[in-house]
Amino acid sequence: MKPVNVGLLGLGTVGGGTLNVLHRNAREISRRAGNTIQVTHAAARDYNPDHLTGLDNVTITDDAFNVVNDPEVDIVVELIGGYSPARELVLQAIENGKHVVTANKALIALHGNEIFEAAEKKGVTVAFEAAVAGGIPIIKAVREGLTANRIEWIAGIINGTGNFILTEMRDKGRDFDDVLKEAQALGYAEADPTFDVEGIDAAHKLTILGSLAFGIPLQFDKTFTEGISSIEPQDVTVADQFGYVIKHLGVTRKTADGIEMRVHPTLIPKRRLIANVDGVMNAVLVKGDAVGPTLYYGAGAGSEPTASAVIADIVDIARALTSDPEHRVPHLAFQPSQLSSTTVLPIEEVVTGYYLRMAVKDKPGVISQVTGILGNLDISIEAIQQKEPPEDQEYASLVMLTQPVQEKFMQQAIEQIKALDNIVGSVVMIRVELLDS
Amino acid sequence: MKPVNVGLLGLGTVGGGTLNVLHRNAREISRRAGNTIQVTHAAARDYNPDHLTGLDNVTITDDAFNVVNDPEVDIVVELIGGYSPARELVLQAIENGKHVVTANKALIALHGNEIFEAAEKKGVTVAFEAAVAGGIPIIKAVREGLTANRIEWIAGIINGTGNFILTEMRDKGRDFDDVLKEAQALGYAEADPTFDVEGIDAAHKLTILGSLAFGIPLQFDKTFTEGISSIEPQDVTVADQFGYVIKHLGVTRKTADGIEMRVHPTLIPKRRLIANVDGVMNAVLVKGDAVGPTLYYGAGAGSEPTASAVIADIVDIARALTSDPEHRVPHLAFQPSQLSSTTVLPIEEVVTGYYLRMAVKDKPGVISQVTGILGNLDISIEAIQQKEPPEDQEYASLVMLTQPVQEKFMQQAIEQIKALDNIVGSVVMIRVELLDS
Repeated sequence: MKPVNVGLLGLGTVGGGTLNVLHRNAREISRRAGNTIQVTHAAARDYNPDHLTGLDNVTITDDAFNVVNDPEVDIVVELIGGYSPARELVLQAIENGKHVVTANKALIALHGNEIFEAAEKKGVTVAFEAAVAGGIPIIKAVREGLTANRIEWIAGIINGTGNFILTEMRDKGRDFDDVLKEAQALGYAEADPTFDVEGIDAAHKLTILGSLAFGIPLQFDKTFTEGISSIEPQDVTVADQFGYVIKHLGVTRKTADGIEMRVHPTLIPKRRLIANVDGVMNAVLVKGDAVGPTLYYGAGAGSEPTASAVIADIVDIARALTSDPEHRVPHLAFQPSQLSSTTVLPIEEVVTGYYLRMAVKDKPGVISQVTGILGNLDISIEAIQQKEPPEDQEYASLVMLTQPVQEKFMQQAIEQIKALDNIVGSVVMIRVELLDS
Repeated sequence: MKPVNVGLLGLGTVGGGTLNVLHRNAREISRRAGNTIQVTHAAARDYNPDHLTGLDNVTITDDAFNVVNDPEVDIVVELIGGYSPARELVLQAIENGKHVVTANKALIALHGNEIFEAAEKKGVTVAFEAAVAGGIPIIKAVREGLTANRIEWIAGIINGTGNFILTEMRDKGRDFDDVLKEAQALGYAEADPTFDVEGIDAAHKLTILGSLAFGIPLQFDKTFTEGISSIEPQDVTVADQFGYVIKHLGVTRKTADGIEMRVHPTLIPKRRLIANVDGVMNAVLVKGDAVGPTLYYGAGAGSEPTASAVIADIVDIARALTSDPEHRVPHLAFQPSQLSSTTVLPIEEVVTGYYLRMAVKDKPGVISQVTGILGNLDISIEAIQQKEPPEDQEYASLVMLTQPVQEKFMQQAIEQIKALDNIVGSVVMIRVELLDS
């Protein structure tokens, strides 16, 4: 089968990430896509080859129109950003009968109607998963996962810079200007932070979400936009006292009178899951009439998270190009011929941390006996707590958290602990997962 | 265009929900699918017509094989559950060249390999989004949204009954048996709760997630399964003191040695987003090498949430049946001819609650003046707080939360408040959203 040839416009943060991930995960991706996806062309004015892999067989040009007009390119991936020449490049690619993938929220929000009309005429796809909430597959969720529903509303934290600033203001009592400077130093915020902190970037994304939810043309000019630069530390503090946090939300809602589309700082109850989405992370909460509330959380920006969405779009197109419709997506995600026989590990070989609880006789030396057994098996203890027996019980309770260890060693330890004279009954063992790496 | 004919096997909780949602949202769904989706046949031994809508043109039989063998049916939707006759019905439907949608996790986990092989031979799709985490489009996310990634691990709260029990034990200090009885009374748990509380239901779902993540055949028998019935209130309490919550997790992870697949109670740090997923809700956390962590949250069971996933699968198939591959999913979710001209509301017509903060001179009557203005405009106050000026400032701070009101009235109120002699400077206004309905 002929491989799918990708032409990348831009080799910056997202373009570089796309190149690198396509290269690093080439085998995994082709096992899923049922075809080889290869970057054959790229356009970049200047780029750093030290940060890029898989450039060997890529034809590089400094004129993006060379890529768009190259007959060998099947999919044009626009990662330049901005309105122009992105618009002209995308329209030219469509005119040339190529599929387009873009991460450009500004372009889609302002020129999407024109671009999609052109694409429909030419029978090509313009995919834009990366344009909203970076690596979170929220466009796929709304457009395909929730098709049964009348969407009632969507509320999203869809600008990581703004969320980072508000999180720091709340956690550390810092003021807006101070945190903004740090965000710029960390690379979270641009030198000109207007698009992020005044809500324009979020408004681009919300405009797209509103159209997907309610089936209306894109109307960026009707999206109400208010930034976070006027939020003061005392507002964050008082909101907290009332049981709320301040988040910069994009909200779109259908009412009897029409559709709301608005981006503004918003007090939301602390106990909502989305209120706990902190730092640069994004999350989108979608309320459907059948499914109820669903939430989608992940990195909303960054090189590889955005590349993840870009490549998902490329694979979607590759799957449609190379399969009959019924087999577009393999049942088990990977092509049937590509399933692997990797071993499933027995639980004895799994590595986790452990919580142990046991009833102990209140005699000297018990703790030393138990920790001695663990130490002999190279099991490190992270925390330990012994509680005197409650009035109605005879024995004290000894609880420990351990560092990760292979389960067979923990099983040995428990057998030995249970055999101690000073231990009564069984040892309760619950596994621990930090879920952080 | 010929409508897509659906044959429903089962008119119980999920079958009834599917019928009702397809009927209620018929217009919205066909605007998205580009075709009419109609239930033409249903099989049910006994059902309650009072809870069902859209049955008028449905041929009902008590023998599910009649539906499976009916040449008019395009898609068979299996919502009977269990292994047999579900397996025979699904295989017969495939043999007859029909696409299949199922919510049956037990069937897929145990017989999926055989079923998918048969489907691939006949060129039909077997879709099973509803089999894992109910209404959450997690299968679509893993199979299509994250195709760029090497999945590193997945950890999910994928049994609502178990999560409800653990949440109640933590929040109210109740014991397992007590909460289980309540869950049964509320209809969250079956009369025989074994599948839920012993982790078998979660293991079915985890088996499916493990295969989707790592490209291995389904291997339910290798999934380690431990239930929550031995968790005691004191474990919940001590975990909390250590900074953890206990959740019943399904975990699948790829290591250098093989793949872990395991369901067991797990201590996880409180500060993780997934640790805050409470009650009957489900959530799945997926770690990809490019995208990082992403989380998907929603209702994991129930009539209409599960129907939401079933119908998403039906629409997926309908879109593939009725469009050329490039136009499978419309750019803006709805068919281009079906976009609507619904008004986008100006911000003045939006209804939200408000947070107001103003600097006030410390004189008697200020609060009464401000609340009087709000009262005259029918704006109800939900909370109010006045703070004495800090040492370095001259004025006190008056903060209020209001009930929802149309923004134009709030704007009028603020104009009037700003004109008061006792108010200094501007009035800070931040919108409030409860995100609960």
